[in-house]
Amino acid sequence: MTQRIAVIGLGSMGLGMAQSLQRAGFAVTGCDVSQAAVSRFVAAGGQGAATPADAARDAEIVVSVVVNAAQTESILFGESGAAETLAKGGAFISSATMDPEAARALAARLEATGRHYLDAPISGGAVRAAEGALTILASGSAAAFTKARGALEAMAANIYALGDKPGTGAAFKMINQLLAGVHIAVASEAMAFAAKQGLDLHKVYEVITKSAGNSWCFENRMQHVLDNDYAPRSAIDIFVKDLGIVQDMARAAKFPVPIASAALQMFLMSAAAGMGRDDDSSVARLYAQIAGIDLASARR
Amino acid sequence: MTQRIAVIGLGSMGLGMAQSLQRAGFAVTGCDVSQAAVSRFVAAGGQGAATPADAARDAEIVVSVVVNAAQTESILFGESGAAETLAKGGAFISSATMDPEAARALAARLEATGRHYLDAPISGGAVRAAEGALTILASGSAAAFTKARGALEAMAANIYALGDKPGTGAAFKMINQLLAGVHIAVASEAMAFAAKQGLDLHKVYEVITKSAGNSWCFENRMQHVLDNDYAPRSAIDIFVKDLGIVQDMARAAKFPVPIASAALQMFLMSAAAGMGRDDDSSVARLYAQIAGIDLASARR
Repeated sequence: MTQRIAVIGLGSMGLGMAQSLQRAGFAVTGCDVSQAAVSRFVAAGGQGAATPADAARDAEIVVSVVVNAAQTESILFGESGAAETLAKGGAFISSATMDPEAARALAARLEATGRHYLDAPISGGAVRAAEGALTILASGSAAAFTKARGALEAMAANIYALGDKPGTGAAFKMINQLLAGVHIAVASEAMAFAAKQGLDLHKVYEVITKSAGNSWCFENRMQHVLDNDYAPRSAIDIFVKDLGIVQDMARAAKFPVPIASAALQMFLMSAAAGMGRDDDSSVARLYAQIAGIDLASARR
Repeated sequence: MTQRIAVIGLGSMGLGMAQSLQRAGFAVTGCDVSQAAVSRFVAAGGQGAATPADAARDAEIVVSVVVNAAQTESILFGESGAAETLAKGGAFISSATMDPEAARALAARLEATGRHYLDAPISGGAVRAAEGALTILASGSAAAFTKARGALEAMAANIYALGDKPGTGAAFKMINQLLAGVHIAVASEAMAFAAKQGLDLHKVYEVITKSAGNSWCFENRMQHVLDNDYAPRSAIDIFVKDLGIVQDMARAAKFPVPIASAALQMFLMSAAAGMGRDDDSSVARLYAQIAGIDLASARR
């Protein structure tokens, strides 16, 4: 019998994940606050629902693809939430990036109702989501993993099983976000500084991507700067949120994170300057704006 | 006829470069302030000299492998300096990392005497130096490149010709050092923070090196942290120097570098705590010391 899965949140990531699940043979019902997003999924052969509760009815698994803890809580426990209707013994797979404490609290609350919670933040962009080739950083009980396994395999190329406690997956994701956020900010700082020094930015990109100064984010994001294309693949606001969570976690743990703090300020400045919804490589534009240089014409 | 080359500075990098030149058929005379370093080179079949002037006598090329602009100036123009004896029309290949302004000044002073100056900072560690497989970021006149070409090819796997003005190679190297320094500092911050969060550091290394948060420096240096091995491959003091040059350049250009500044402070704190001559991954030890965590036993 075909297993039923609800996907809540049909943005660029959720839509791809829903379609990967369909390709793997699951019967998928999608739900989103945007009616247009639901219609797009239905047009692509999916089934639509009006609320998380409707989507989760008769489903054994709910995959939540939203941006933060507050939205995840609302999907589960808000009005017409999925926790009302998800089958007892079913699994809730949470992909939002959030504070590990928040993941632990949501898991405890859901598990008290007899349902399983898998803390499963994702990594990889929309293209990989559509290919079923994400990386998933998962933690949770053995029962949650057993229930979720087939769905995880349909959505991901790499599944890291990081422990039996919700919150551990979230913590790994935050360590990744700390690094990625700083790497994007410093790549922007370095490229704008190179322009200020009169260097050819295409040459800088060529040299750095083959040198010890390279990072995955430099190689990926600085191509956007060379292309002068700031259409959002991932937005400034995402790192305002994620480096904000890092700050909250670090302060709560009495742990200093001066480099991440400096990077957060650069994302905040970019957001304050009106670029919050633009590509996160826009930090380079902010440096250029401050220093009065033109990245698009910075050639020797 | 065999071409004569002098190599001034026979540390771990210079020795490997001198031996690569010998293998390529050059007659190499080495010189170092340390008599032990000269003896080591002589024992390996090289020729030794007491002063830069002696080493450069009858040579067509001098390769300088020292750490900064002051040492480079001393080698060229100090007492018994190489500029006294290097053949007119010969080339001085300078590999030290320095402020582009300093490179331009040294080049102008040497070229006024009828000798060529190639600004040629190197990248890659001692192993690559010994293999003749360095990366060289070179700039200088066409005459300097023509004269230096054979020597460059003997020492490097990748030679970037970055323009006809001394200083451009230096500027590219500083952009690389800005990125590498920040990447080492933030890798240290992230690993220590992960330990504080109770994560298994081997697992963190495995996940991050396959994720968007990866950098060349994370992958290379955090292995030292996992191994609890802080024997210097490259020392804290090198980044105190190089990020210091970045600060000087940026201030002179009225360009803000907040991320590099935060990283410099972490290298300075590590040096202040007595780790200046230890491996640059020691920044992780500094975070651990501050926060009272034990990186060597941080397992879940």
